[in-house]
This record gives sequence, C-alpha cells and structure tokens, in this order.
Amino acid sequence: VLLVFTGNGKGKTTSAIGQAIRVLGQGGKIFFIQFIKSSNFPAGEDKILSSFSDNLTFIKGGRGFVGILNDFLPRSIHKKSALETLSLAEKALLSKKYSLLVLDEINIALNLKLLSLSKVFNFLKKVPLETDVIFTGRNAPNELISLADIATEFKELKHPYNSGVPSKKGREY
Amino acid sequence: VLLVFTGNGKGKTTSAIGQAIRVLGQGGKIFFIQFIKSSNFPAGEDKILSSFSDNLTFIKGGRGFVGILNDFLPRSIHKKSALETLSLAEKALLSKKYSLLVLDEINIALNLKLLSLSKVFNFLKKVPLETDVIFTGRNAPNELISLADIATEFKELKHPYNSGVPSKKGREY
Repeated sequence: VLLVFTGNGKGKTTSAIGQAIRVLGQGGKIFFIQFIKSSNFPAGEDKILSSFSDNLTFIKGGRGFVGILNDFLPRSIHKKSALETLSLAEKALLSKKYSLLVLDEINIALNLKLLSLSKVFNFLKKVPLETDVIFTGRNAPNELISLADIATEFKELKHPYNSGVPSKKGREY
Repeated sequence: VLLVFTGNGKGKTTSAIGQAIRVLGQGGKIFFIQFIKSSNFPAGEDKILSSFSDNLTFIKGGRGFVGILNDFLPRSIHKKSALETLSLAEKALLSKKYSLLVLDEINIALNLKLLSLSKVFNFLKKVPLETDVIFTGRNAPNELISLADIATEFKELKHPYNSGVPSKKGREY
C-alpha cells in the first residue's frame, strides 16, 4: 500500500515520523530512509528515531539539498546517492522484516530527476499488500499520485516565513 | 506561535506526533493532550508517547467520538470533558515547563461547539512567543486560521476508503 505525502505545506516528514511511532506502538518494524537529507544536516528527530534501533532502522541517505547556495557537489554525486538510497530501501523491502518503509523526500529526488520514475515504479511493484510504504516530499509527480492508495496534499495556508515568524530549532528541523 | 493542522486528509495527528519527536530530540518538553479521543480508543502512538514520561506528558482527555453510532453519552458530558481538557492545557501552559503543547483534535471540539471560540482565544492570548502550540483536527474555524502563524490544510487527494484499501492497525490508529 503506497501513501504519498506531498504539497508545499508544513508537516510531511513529521507526519511520516508520527506514522512510524504509531506502527512502533503496534509492534511493527520500520525502515526509515531519507533522500536529499544528509548527516551534515542533523534534525531533532534523528536522535529519537535512532534510539529505537531494534525496531526502527534510520538512515540519512542524501548528500544535502540540491542546487542551492552551499551545494558544491556535482549532480552525478546526488544521482549516485539517490540510487544507492533506493537500493537500500529495496533491500529492506525484500528482507520482509519491515511493516512500514518511509522513503522521506523521495518525491523531491523524483522531481529533480535524480531518480527515474521507471526505477521507482519497479520498486513499487515489489511492495506486497501487507506492507505500507510512505513517500514524502513536495512536487510529487502526478504519475506517482495515480499509483498511490492514499495521498495527502499538505497545502500551505499560512507560513511563518510569510507572517514574519523566524524558522526555529525543534519546529523546522 | 500557533500552528493549525486541518483538512480532511490523512496525517494531522501523526504530524503533531512527529513534531513532538522533533522537539524531544532538541531537548524540549512537550505537553500532548487529546480532545475527543479517550483511553477507550487506544492507538499505537499512546504507548510510545507515554514512554518519554520525563519529557513528554501525554493525556487522552476526550470521551470518544461525538454523535456517532456507539456514542451513548449526553452532549453535556462531552462539553465538560472538552472544558476540562482545555483547562489542563492552560495549566500546562502557565507552568512554563513546555516548549511545545499539542491540542490534538481541538478543531473538532470547536467545530462541534463543545468549546467556544472565545474560550480558546483566551487560551491563545496567554501563549508566549517562545512556545509552540499545535491545534489539529478537520474543520478548523476560519477565525482560528486567521490567528495562526502556520497553517496547513491536509487535503485528501486519495483515500483508502475510496480506493478500497481497508483501514489498518498501525496505519489509522
């Protein structure tokens, strides 16, 4: 079962984290892997998610945000790490150990064409009905949304950057 | 700072849970209280949220969903528990112990008029700038959204009940 969390509003990654916590409480095992996000950009959740090590595998597979000011990496490096991240997720899927797999920010990797849709569709074909897979990130391609069983658009009605409230540790990261 | 998570799509409560996990990882303290939801309706997250007892206070303050088939309680009981839940949240706020307060499903309580807008606005007036307060639940009143610093509408693009996928332990509760 594929769940897609997309849109420009706040809450996509945190929603996947909350879903992981819910599954954990029901006794399931979770594989939580992040595209784009790298260990150079630590977030509050990293420590907590890593603390459930027996039942939750947490991996930051990215190399940082792509194409912004302090991104000095060639695109090929970002592509390589996106492919490696997908292949780790596929290995986890095929191990059949996990009831939930979160592929955080994969929608961004797709949108930036670090990953091809066909590679991702190939991954999705292998997902059994009893396994939930969550894809997060803004700009999910329409082809992906058509394939989803559950899809939520997180629509920004109001954002702190607009209303003048500064970004904050613990709120945005 | 007020964050409102509303809309008919999946992910509002789990997003608040993820936000709590993020704040926890940054060393903050969280007060997480639920309107409507009662301990008669256990969810996967309950056990995990309760396990952070030193840094996270978790309370199910509701008496169950209102006006549905197996709701045998008079409306006055639901009103009373909504008021008590708000007053627990206010006590927590005034204790200044918490950097994040989650009032889960309060939007529903407002929409059902178990709580008056003026009582809730009165609560919000007491929120200092350094404290984040998250209100979740569908049908948030527009007056509330106008007051919010951050507001996300969780818009259902696709839902399992529509596509025929049954509701599942660990996914919906």
